[in-house]
Amino acid sequence: MPTLTANRQWDTRRAEKRRRQALGARFADGKVVPTGDIVPFLEAVTAPHDRVVLEGNNQKQADFLSRSLAEVDPGRIHDLHMIIPSVSRVEHLDLFERGIARKLDFAYAGAQSLRISQFLADGQLEVGAIHTYIELYSRLYVDLTPQVVLIAGYKADREGNLYTGASTEDTPALVEAAAFRDGIVIAQVNEIVDDPADMPRVDIPGSWIDYVVQADKPFFCEPLFTRDPRLIKPVHVLMAMMAIRGIYERHNVQSLNHGIGFNTAAIELILPTYGEKLGLKGKICKYWTLNPHPTLIPAIESGWVESVHSFGSELGMENYVAARPDVFFTGADGSMRSNRAICQLAGQYAVDLFIGSTLQIDGDGHSSTVTRGRLSGFGGAPNMGHNPGGRRHATPAWLDLIETDDPLARGRKLVVQMVETFQAGGKPTFVESMDAVQVAKDSGMPLAPVMIYGDDVTHVLTEEGIAYLYKARSLEERRRMIAAVAGVTPIGLRHDPATTRQMRTDGLIALPEDLGVHRGEATRSLLAAKSMADLVEWSGGLYEPPARFRSW
Amino acid sequence: MPTLTANRQWDTRRAEKRRRQALGARFADGKVVPTGDIVPFLEAVTAPHDRVVLEGNNQKQADFLSRSLAEVDPGRIHDLHMIIPSVSRVEHLDLFERGIARKLDFAYAGAQSLRISQFLADGQLEVGAIHTYIELYSRLYVDLTPQVVLIAGYKADREGNLYTGASTEDTPALVEAAAFRDGIVIAQVNEIVDDPADMPRVDIPGSWIDYVVQADKPFFCEPLFTRDPRLIKPVHVLMAMMAIRGIYERHNVQSLNHGIGFNTAAIELILPTYGEKLGLKGKICKYWTLNPHPTLIPAIESGWVESVHSFGSELGMENYVAARPDVFFTGADGSMRSNRAICQLAGQYAVDLFIGSTLQIDGDGHSSTVTRGRLSGFGGAPNMGHNPGGRRHATPAWLDLIETDDPLARGRKLVVQMVETFQAGGKPTFVESMDAVQVAKDSGMPLAPVMIYGDDVTHVLTEEGIAYLYKARSLEERRRMIAAVAGVTPIGLRHDPATTRQMRTDGLIALPEDLGVHRGEATRSLLAAKSMADLVEWSGGLYEPPARFRSW
Repeated sequence: MPTLTANRQWDTRRAEKRRRQALGARFADGKVVPTGDIVPFLEAVTAPHDRVVLEGNNQKQADFLSRSLAEVDPGRIHDLHMIIPSVSRVEHLDLFERGIARKLDFAYAGAQSLRISQFLADGQLEVGAIHTYIELYSRLYVDLTPQVVLIAGYKADREGNLYTGASTEDTPALVEAAAFRDGIVIAQVNEIVDDPADMPRVDIPGSWIDYVVQADKPFFCEPLFTRDPRLIKPVHVLMAMMAIRGIYERHNVQSLNHGIGFNTAAIELILPTYGEKLGLKGKICKYWTLNPHPTLIPAIESGWVESVHSFGSELGMENYVAARPDVFFTGADGSMRSNRAICQLAGQYAVDLFIGSTLQIDGDGHSSTVTRGRLSGFGGAPNMGHNPGGRRHATPAWLDLIETDDPLARGRKLVVQMVETFQAGGKPTFVESMDAVQVAKDSGMPLAPVMIYGDDVTHVLTEEGIAYLYKARSLEERRRMIAAVAGVTPIGLRHDPATTRQMRTDGLIALPEDLGVHRGEATRSLLAAKSMADLVEWSGGLYEPPARFRSW
Repeated sequence: MPTLTANRQWDTRRAEKRRRQALGARFADGKVVPTGDIVPFLEAVTAPHDRVVLEGNNQKQADFLSRSLAEVDPGRIHDLHMIIPSVSRVEHLDLFERGIARKLDFAYAGAQSLRISQFLADGQLEVGAIHTYIELYSRLYVDLTPQVVLIAGYKADREGNLYTGASTEDTPALVEAAAFRDGIVIAQVNEIVDDPADMPRVDIPGSWIDYVVQADKPFFCEPLFTRDPRLIKPVHVLMAMMAIRGIYERHNVQSLNHGIGFNTAAIELILPTYGEKLGLKGKICKYWTLNPHPTLIPAIESGWVESVHSFGSELGMENYVAARPDVFFTGADGSMRSNRAICQLAGQYAVDLFIGSTLQIDGDGHSSTVTRGRLSGFGGAPNMGHNPGGRRHATPAWLDLIETDDPLARGRKLVVQMVETFQAGGKPTFVESMDAVQVAKDSGMPLAPVMIYGDDVTHVLTEEGIAYLYKARSLEERRRMIAAVAGVTPIGLRHDPATTRQMRTDGLIALPEDLGVHRGEATRSLLAAKSMADLVEWSGGLYEPPARFRSW
């Protein structure tokens, strides 16, 4: 038997945590850190080269903690390895500019994507990898276990019990990784209550949270999923009608995830009109995984929706959600509970269909939202927008996509790309080569940042028609089908009218008239709500749109 | 605007929960249900046709609650729709025999698989679907939201705060689905403490748990992952050597999941000997997602293992795990925390390699553990044993499997099937057609219960050699590669010696000698531990094997 490593210490992480807690004790009263002491406190409990998770979330931001971390002395705290699901605040990158942080692992970067690219080019920042959300959470339990986790909640008591508010989002997945491997968890909250009985509910037990600090102002939370119905155009209505007839009805779609474009908002808004007229209520679109989109209100109110499980929340929807507990997931206190990790799982493994939009699609059907000069990342679309090979249970829609008699054939998840052939500004959606390919070369990325791969896409829906890509028997045929619905883009111009006719006959593609969709009917009058005010009315006044969406 | 459903009640679930809680109140003292009153209490808070989740877990069983549910009056409680991740107790099926339950959704059935098939044939039971674990959890948040959830924990206080013990396993995923959609959560525990300060830690907050009941005896927990090194044969050692040289070293595997066979136990046990001699310590196999296998102890003690995140726990490993917090995930109390949902995610998205065994592989590389007359289900292998198309981050091993120059090429997860060409009893592992195909026909299943599909398998490793299937350029070539390592099975007899020679030259397959693996060296003397007693010794006496594994 080889020699045992008899003298090895097996609790170095725990000992290090205790050492830091001893240093932090002079600033903290038990678990409570005074607001004004947060910077020296962070300097005490953090160390150079730490892996630090920062809740830069899709909507909810631990912004007091990120601003405070950006103020620590880079002479003391430097070379941090930041793990930020969504890089969305200026100070997220200030950390790198000031030399406090060095390496970044992330999943999504919206407003900061341009600056990440610049920092990368300037050598101010090193990217570990760009992930999807769920991959990034997973790695926290494997090779990226953090020393420090900085998160945001709504309310805490002095024992650390945490109420996240409706935007629970990523918080549980981030906290557990540190709480059970001797990391330090620090929560900023809007309010600290003395009496645990004043907590609306507990989302995360106090023993998982090491410190709480009241933020200087409430955490930032962004309304990302609100689409004003006024901006929905007749072409969106036409495409929505095609989606309902040519995909949802045809394949018997029961459960689904919608993206955040005006196209899918149009689908949500014509279910109570067009969908009702077709007699589809109670037959399709019953179970949803998505944030509480305001444009879903009319469908909910008219009885289409059995349940909605959400990744995050949406500003203004709090009271409406709380008043509809049969539909939404809410706690014993009545307020919403979201959970991004669980909803990503559900969106991957438990729904029939994902439908989303994109900026560019190439001739093979690969798509990306990445444009030149921007490292914007992936978010969650690649997980929901692929056919999970690990799925084993069957549903009617899933089985409906089997095209062979092979007893080992599997069903498929419906992955729909719903795009106009041209983007705003006249840029073609269908392109010879995605910008993503060049971005990968320019940035030295090991892979082109493709959002959804062509072989995962089952349907492409444009204003021209639907290409039923899952029926393609070869890559060549898939290309022809895409070209047939790609309009007058460079890819669309490749199409051969004779081939297109034959493909219509063979059911490989369908134009609106093939689906019984009347172009003349595709007007805004089909929208169950035509404005934000209509949505408020549908909600019985429960929905309270953020100011920027109000015109009254 | 269509008419609002103005009179609709939107909190029917909450009202129904309150109605039932009022009925249950006569048996309960606050949240505490007396042990002797559990049967009438269940009759009060359950209703016919309910969806009831029962924590029949991989290891941990809510067996007091399942035995009690099987005693309710079928005249009052009937036609339940049971959702049981792992159907493993006799009483799980007694529910159907007695008419209390009617429909079953599940993920795995070990000992009860034969009886499920019989009940199905007799019309006593209707199967919703057979899932993987993670799909089943997902559906709890979409179309299978439960009315009642029955789970097991180690300890609770009178407020419902729950300590699950080391086998946290499925509990959080099951509870959240009910706690946030007005379902009723009932936890059996081994002990109820009066003072919350006597809780070792809180795994689930009290506000998520409606009732706690002290079980008549501690919950059943099965040691499923203990393999006695005495049963490891020289052929396993040979195959383990090939795995290390021909796969782990070659592809630079950093993070991995091991199955529970003697083959993979052999790998674990020769890392400190053979792996050390090759100079691989600290270079491969650092991050693990697996239960605390006792056979991993020598590798941990000799410094191979950076971290282990676990699906569940393993009886006898409690003290060892608690003494190695740098390696395992443990709570503030020092005891282990597992989490099957998170570990399944990590095993799917965050590791380089899955390696497992199976009972049958067909000529195309499809495999299954299903044998005639048994509906045994899937567990978690299909999720870890596939190439997740939603993955976007790169690792060296993942990139190493790219075989083209296509800028849109992706890496692949390593999915290894490690099997002897014949099973015990002389049954061939490589077969013309898997029993699973016939089982599907006989049971009217919509799909054959394939565990891992051939196109997901990257390597087949037998005592003959390794087939590098990810290099196959066609299905025909994949078949030839499989035949070349399938020995004298019906599939193996198809191989053509000339082709095999050419495939060795081309690097499509490798025999031990091609890998520098000396057959003569493949003896049990390479095993770092040759018996359970050796494992105990390696652990410094911390590992306490269950009685059935002890020979001293």
